[in-house]
Amino acid sequence: MAPIRSREIHLVNRPEGLPEPGDFAIVETTIDEPRDGEVQVRNLWLSVDPYMRGLMWTTRTYVDPYHLGEVMTGGAVGTVEASRHPKLSEGDLVLSNHGWRDRFVASGDGVHPIDPNLAPPQAYLGVMGMPGFTAWLGIHEIGRLEAGEAIFVSGAAGAVGSVACQLARRLGAKVVGSAGSDEKVQWLQDKAGITAFNYRKVKHLYRQLVRECRDGFHVYFDNVGGGHLEAALLSMRDFGRVVLCGMIGQYNADHPPAGPSSLIVAITKRLTMRGFIAFDHAELEPRFQAEMAGLIARGHVRWTETVYDGLDSAPAAFLGLFSGANTGKMLVRL
Amino acid sequence: MAPIRSREIHLVNRPEGLPEPGDFAIVETTIDEPRDGEVQVRNLWLSVDPYMRGLMWTTRTYVDPYHLGEVMTGGAVGTVEASRHPKLSEGDLVLSNHGWRDRFVASGDGVHPIDPNLAPPQAYLGVMGMPGFTAWLGIHEIGRLEAGEAIFVSGAAGAVGSVACQLARRLGAKVVGSAGSDEKVQWLQDKAGITAFNYRKVKHLYRQLVRECRDGFHVYFDNVGGGHLEAALLSMRDFGRVVLCGMIGQYNADHPPAGPSSLIVAITKRLTMRGFIAFDHAELEPRFQAEMAGLIARGHVRWTETVYDGLDSAPAAFLGLFSGANTGKMLVRL
Repeated sequence: MAPIRSREIHLVNRPEGLPEPGDFAIVETTIDEPRDGEVQVRNLWLSVDPYMRGLMWTTRTYVDPYHLGEVMTGGAVGTVEASRHPKLSEGDLVLSNHGWRDRFVASGDGVHPIDPNLAPPQAYLGVMGMPGFTAWLGIHEIGRLEAGEAIFVSGAAGAVGSVACQLARRLGAKVVGSAGSDEKVQWLQDKAGITAFNYRKVKHLYRQLVRECRDGFHVYFDNVGGGHLEAALLSMRDFGRVVLCGMIGQYNADHPPAGPSSLIVAITKRLTMRGFIAFDHAELEPRFQAEMAGLIARGHVRWTETVYDGLDSAPAAFLGLFSGANTGKMLVRL
Repeated sequence: MAPIRSREIHLVNRPEGLPEPGDFAIVETTIDEPRDGEVQVRNLWLSVDPYMRGLMWTTRTYVDPYHLGEVMTGGAVGTVEASRHPKLSEGDLVLSNHGWRDRFVASGDGVHPIDPNLAPPQAYLGVMGMPGFTAWLGIHEIGRLEAGEAIFVSGAAGAVGSVACQLARRLGAKVVGSAGSDEKVQWLQDKAGITAFNYRKVKHLYRQLVRECRDGFHVYFDNVGGGHLEAALLSMRDFGRVVLCGMIGQYNADHPPAGPSSLIVAITKRLTMRGFIAFDHAELEPRFQAEMAGLIARGHVRWTETVYDGLDSAPAAFLGLFSGANTGKMLVRL
């Protein structure tokens, strides 16, 4: 069997604080042709996601951490170049979790066909994929948001937040979102149809939240942590629900920063705060995909992308997540 | 109608930080005889409880704050001296919320007969009353503890904690409790039948929790907040539940202290943290009382009391809650 050439991005150093380009290495490699049950896939789109930062430490959390000297795994969409798997054919578009590489050969069982008639291929890394599913779970399963309620979403212009805002609005909720640039706020107001503000221009976040929603929020969808969580807790209504989805503000902290000084209101307001991870809820994914495909078809959910080009740019795209370089889903196009 | 003499304790200054004796005043007063529908009650036992500290600020939380120059309301058990209420007779033992005073006249509707055959009168301020009910709710309704699970209870020798530990043990859970003196630890081991440690002698709380329960806790019953909550979060199992009952460690803080730096594990471990207040669950109180009466009758729940004598001692008893002067329920006997 003739060897096939590919390039991969490996994690070669465990960063403390913000990762640097030198923590990654581009590695030329050769892979064998597919054997029985395997497929060969050429990636078209790679996903970079905030959760990946958590996998760079040595501690096991809900999955194993990245191994040094191995590829940065994660979501990717590609096209089947050769198949020896009964359910996959050459030319199929597929979603995998094999990460930052041009090409791979792997068992066809871990490679999932996607339907480009429902959404563009890269949307399966965003609105139709893990971030969209995360937003859907946070709104419906964890936050149990209902029509007529008020919700605050931080990181509202991100891959998860932007979908969460629109699902909440569709439900008939009052939606307030925070984002880190005027351009993002504009997108949220014009395209997502919600009330939004630029938190970098706000001196006192809690007062801003009171201005936006005098009676307080029923649900807070937290993608940020830190000062956002602290202010949001104070602005909750009694019996409110706090959806703990992400804390991007502290993923690069060397030492974990202090938690919210307002936490005691979780007692006086009788709040429920619940952390979740999408992959625990796999049984709901078909329902999510059917619903989301319908919303997309009817133009009820919009999305935007920030695209970096070329495998080499994956580390820069990833780092851009932490400076807020993305509006909507951050992607790498190969 | 001849005036009746009583003495009351008023809040006369809103403390910042730890309250001082001068924040309270003993006031001699006279009250009118009961009119139709009213009763006259002579108090026998007064309750001092940590939640009272939260009512000394000006902010409304789940109830109105105390008013300056008015009586410190709260649980009390007394005997009916005169009744013009159809359901109450002279000599009846009753529970009220009229607080720190020798005697009062009030509508009979807010005064509840208690049964001294089920438990001694003062137990209706502790194991059979609000603290016991709070413990019961935290274990069953909020924590949803199950047989075979492991639970950590902080403030384990307090009025709530000591009951929570025993309910958990009865359920067949592994119970670890923390308390602030060797005497309390002794009581917890000998009388409550649980594993306990003196947190003041522990250098590294998280490591202690790992030693006590290597696989982590399914439930943490938090009465303390602060460093206890921070360490407990780290020691939780995936999908654990955190019962946010109290944060006595910070009730006297002038400025709210930083929250737990470990809060991010609420996401990676998919924790549910839920604050609650007993009075939201009044519909469950009859069930609680029936169950608790049965447990007491069979000797399955024990309790202890720390008693101060005389109305004048109520502020000192109250302040003692914050230095850990009580094992079990803190009471004032008149």
